[in-house]
Amino acid sequence: MKMLPGIGVFGTGSVVRIIVPFLRAKGFVVVAIWGRTPASAQQVAKELSIPFYTSKVDEVLLRKDVDLIFVLCSPHLHAQISVKALGIGKHVLCDRPAGICQNDALKMVKASQYYPSLISIVNHSLRFLPAFTMMRKCLRDNYVGKRIDLCDVRIRISSLIDETEGYDWTCDERMGGGILTLVGSHVIDLLSFLTGLRATRVHGVIRTFESETARVQGIRRVTAPDFATFQLELGGPINDYNLLTGDRAPLLVTVQLMSSNQAGAFNQELVITGEAGALWVKGGDLHGRRNNAKEECLYLDVEDLEVITKSVT
Amino acid sequence: MKMLPGIGVFGTGSVVRIIVPFLRAKGFVVVAIWGRTPASAQQVAKELSIPFYTSKVDEVLLRKDVDLIFVLCSPHLHAQISVKALGIGKHVLCDRPAGICQNDALKMVKASQYYPSLISIVNHSLRFLPAFTMMRKCLRDNYVGKRIDLCDVRIRISSLIDETEGYDWTCDERMGGGILTLVGSHVIDLLSFLTGLRATRVHGVIRTFESETARVQGIRRVTAPDFATFQLELGGPINDYNLLTGDRAPLLVTVQLMSSNQAGAFNQELVITGEAGALWVKGGDLHGRRNNAKEECLYLDVEDLEVITKSVT
Repeated sequence: MKMLPGIGVFGTGSVVRIIVPFLRAKGFVVVAIWGRTPASAQQVAKELSIPFYTSKVDEVLLRKDVDLIFVLCSPHLHAQISVKALGIGKHVLCDRPAGICQNDALKMVKASQYYPSLISIVNHSLRFLPAFTMMRKCLRDNYVGKRIDLCDVRIRISSLIDETEGYDWTCDERMGGGILTLVGSHVIDLLSFLTGLRATRVHGVIRTFESETARVQGIRRVTAPDFATFQLELGGPINDYNLLTGDRAPLLVTVQLMSSNQAGAFNQELVITGEAGALWVKGGDLHGRRNNAKEECLYLDVEDLEVITKSVT
Repeated sequence: MKMLPGIGVFGTGSVVRIIVPFLRAKGFVVVAIWGRTPASAQQVAKELSIPFYTSKVDEVLLRKDVDLIFVLCSPHLHAQISVKALGIGKHVLCDRPAGICQNDALKMVKASQYYPSLISIVNHSLRFLPAFTMMRKCLRDNYVGKRIDLCDVRIRISSLIDETEGYDWTCDERMGGGILTLVGSHVIDLLSFLTGLRATRVHGVIRTFESETARVQGIRRVTAPDFATFQLELGGPINDYNLLTGDRAPLLVTVQLMSSNQAGAFNQELVITGEAGALWVKGGDLHGRRNNAKEECLYLDVEDLEVITKSVT
């Protein structure tokens, strides 16, 4: 008797090569894969021993043995595929972002409400990192005091462009590439998780510093931004849990995101300062300091590194 | 035969207590001091053995033995005092900022041009720090390449409010207090020194997180901002030396300034990244890294610390 749903995968990027073995290890059966071209679908299907491959969306969606789909392809197709899948009764796990514009996201939300029994998840994973779960708990316990002044986020990652493919969606802003959609959407999800608030005002600047790569030169240019800085005012509460009480001023958030192969190793830092102290996540660790006290380590990411290392090896 | 000009000092803050002994060590004679109240002027005159004190501006300016004035008082008086002094033929060294609005600054520039032989300096001192002089040289030598992407500035300092005085101009935005005028003006001067460019667009947010102190409570509140974040586009060249050549996009600058007694020690960091590498000043040291090469230290602030230590002791 088969209990776990059969899985159809959309996309042929490096994340597919990582996630399919993981799913199998957990007992799932991956039955079909879709690629933008028949060749790319065939290639990955062969590599990962997936029995069925195609470049036609419906040929995966309409299969009876596909109950859950993983949307891991270009963001400009996220809404189209997810909405269709939810409409014919398939569970959907969609990589971030939820489409490339607000309209896409609203369509997906509406589709997910049509059959409420279906699982529909947008993959914003930062909130599941133990350091952030712990940070949220500390904020609720007033570690930095009742008045929270500032949340400052800085992320440096290596280039988001898939150099193996030549020109593809990761180079193109309109197809959903770039740091604002791929990393910025994570940050915004994380902020709403930590604070229970939603943005009421925003200002930002995006830039594409590296408009050429070794394989993308000449007429075609990279348009996907590799730099973004923005400021948010978080004012509107999402639900009962939120960090603004009484007649507080909106919470200010400053964010800077940069992707470059020259920027050095991956680096993420989120600092929240308040009247009574500060909390910060650096990498996967949580640190804190109450006013006039010494810095303390509140969560160290050692166990997780061990778990991940064991799973991979 | 007296060669060095006699000095009149405006202001009674802590910087006066530091600068008067320095001036004397260099052979200058400090002949008069002005304070906002007769009592504060008398107090500092007695402490520093300055022969004449007053609370009337003209009584310092009109003295025959005063040839050079140091304007070290509240910024809302900078323009008024400097313009009057330049008009009657006195040299002026004015602490930053040059007044509290553009109008003030323009008046001061005009006054300084009336007798071109008079010395008139606004004290923006960061450009004289050896690490920044060296950074400018490296930028001219294309250390980070011809395409400069980003200049990112972050400064943390202790509170700018003079707690000894109770409520004074350092608490008041309209009198020139706060981090944007007192530190931000330094940053803007430094940027024009480093890049040879002036800002063509700007966006920013300021906040006053600490609106009460131990001595300022109740009806009177601190209005001077203790946090500022802004983004500049530097596009217009100031002179022949500038970092934009050909049809380059404007240079993006992101700045974050914060003052708080809880923020830990003083901390300044300025990073410039370009196509071929990065340069950064941290504290008083200059570091660099060319793409695919190791980080190197280009200037270490050891000598200066020794010089300062010797001067003070």
